[in-house]
Amino acid sequence: MITSSANAQMKYISLLQRKASAREKDKSFVVEGVRLFSEVPKKLLLKTYVSERFRKEEIGKYEALFEGVSYEVVADRVFDAACDTQTPQGVLAIVRMPEVFPEKKGKAGLYLILDGIADPGNLGTIFRTAEAAGVSEIVMSAETVDLYNPKVVRSTMGSIFRMPHRRCSDLAGLIKKMQDSGIRCYATSLKQSEDYTKVSYKEATAIVIGNEAHGVSEAVLDACRQHIRIPMDGSIESLNAAIASAVVLFEAARQRR
Amino acid sequence: MITSSANAQMKYISLLQRKASAREKDKSFVVEGVRLFSEVPKKLLLKTYVSERFRKEEIGKYEALFEGVSYEVVADRVFDAACDTQTPQGVLAIVRMPEVFPEKKGKAGLYLILDGIADPGNLGTIFRTAEAAGVSEIVMSAETVDLYNPKVVRSTMGSIFRMPHRRCSDLAGLIKKMQDSGIRCYATSLKQSEDYTKVSYKEATAIVIGNEAHGVSEAVLDACRQHIRIPMDGSIESLNAAIASAVVLFEAARQRR
Repeated sequence: MITSSANAQMKYISLLQRKASAREKDKSFVVEGVRLFSEVPKKLLLKTYVSERFRKEEIGKYEALFEGVSYEVVADRVFDAACDTQTPQGVLAIVRMPEVFPEKKGKAGLYLILDGIADPGNLGTIFRTAEAAGVSEIVMSAETVDLYNPKVVRSTMGSIFRMPHRRCSDLAGLIKKMQDSGIRCYATSLKQSEDYTKVSYKEATAIVIGNEAHGVSEAVLDACRQHIRIPMDGSIESLNAAIASAVVLFEAARQRR
Repeated sequence: MITSSANAQMKYISLLQRKASAREKDKSFVVEGVRLFSEVPKKLLLKTYVSERFRKEEIGKYEALFEGVSYEVVADRVFDAACDTQTPQGVLAIVRMPEVFPEKKGKAGLYLILDGIADPGNLGTIFRTAEAAGVSEIVMSAETVDLYNPKVVRSTMGSIFRMPHRRCSDLAGLIKKMQDSGIRCYATSLKQSEDYTKVSYKEATAIVIGNEAHGVSEAVLDACRQHIRIPMDGSIESLNAAIASAVVLFEAARQRR
């Protein structure tokens, strides 16, 4: 049993929790909690830890989940200190970053392009929402918050393992290529642009959502041939980025059904 | 200048920040930050505080905002301790709870009924989203998180002062009355129910959103004559409550345009 936070494994977990650079270097990140642990594909599982209390009181309830999984037991206080959540459940794993590629489904692709989403909770919620709306792939700009940040991982609720995704350092260039290959690229914008319900999402489509404070960047706006906006009542200046994504993606899903 | 957290006014602010019962008793709550302060109707402003630093360096930039407003200056450290935000901006106010009633707009009403929303961030985001979608009034069950919780107030981004709202301890009874007076009440549900895009929101309509973990309560589901669901792809079991609200409300807004 691990009984000290000075233990090398505990220090490594803490490093992965805090540093995007360490996660990127080792292509690994930390998953916490029973629910999220149950979503991890077994082949990505590098190392599993349970708290002493969880081993005594809880693990019996999750036989199938722990079948064939070897784990280290960690003293409760040391375990809790390694967690990012405020009320740790007693399960934590080091997991290899998933590489999920789009399947050819025979349907026209629906792409979501994120240009600088900064809030971890927003990014996680967008992943979960995009999966539900049938998005084929999410492309994130280099400025978008790290997908393997503990708060993002949690708020994806497991979508991180299923939703195809990649980073791209030149969104404007990518969008030009997508348009040349016949994909319609719609940038969301608050300026003069079309009502998002008046355009078609039935063919191959990409939807671009911008940063919470500054919206879609100038270069990306310029690259997109079409701009759309969500008409708003009241004195609202803009919607939350995850909400705007949901509204446009589910309109696309509606048209595609 | 107030220089101690033991000052009676500072203790009162701290009480209002922490206790829903104190807010309810005095019908008052705390607003933080320049942006939100600028949304407070002047007649609701009970008392304004600024930090020493803000008074020296910032207040000159906001002349119009502080016109006719008297304020107390508070030592920086004492000010920061009174704030709920992690990076206080230097403005804080005690504000009377708004009573915002629905206007008769000549349009059929669009009501949003919240049955037990528990997460403060969700409730705030739902207020902001509902205003943008043209909702006439939000009705909250007694179990819904306190609207004047500092995190809810922040995430409404000012909608709290504009969006008509009330609490109701008997949602099922209210829904029955609404239906008797011709308002269609749609409960969102994951069980057998209609695709939310296949029903009409053009007449007077109420949409019911449930608790994040448990959904709409049995009594309220029973009271609603119609149940709707959002079709979902992938392995997603449910959407975030604010996302689900947005998807249904903006479909209603689309049909009503």
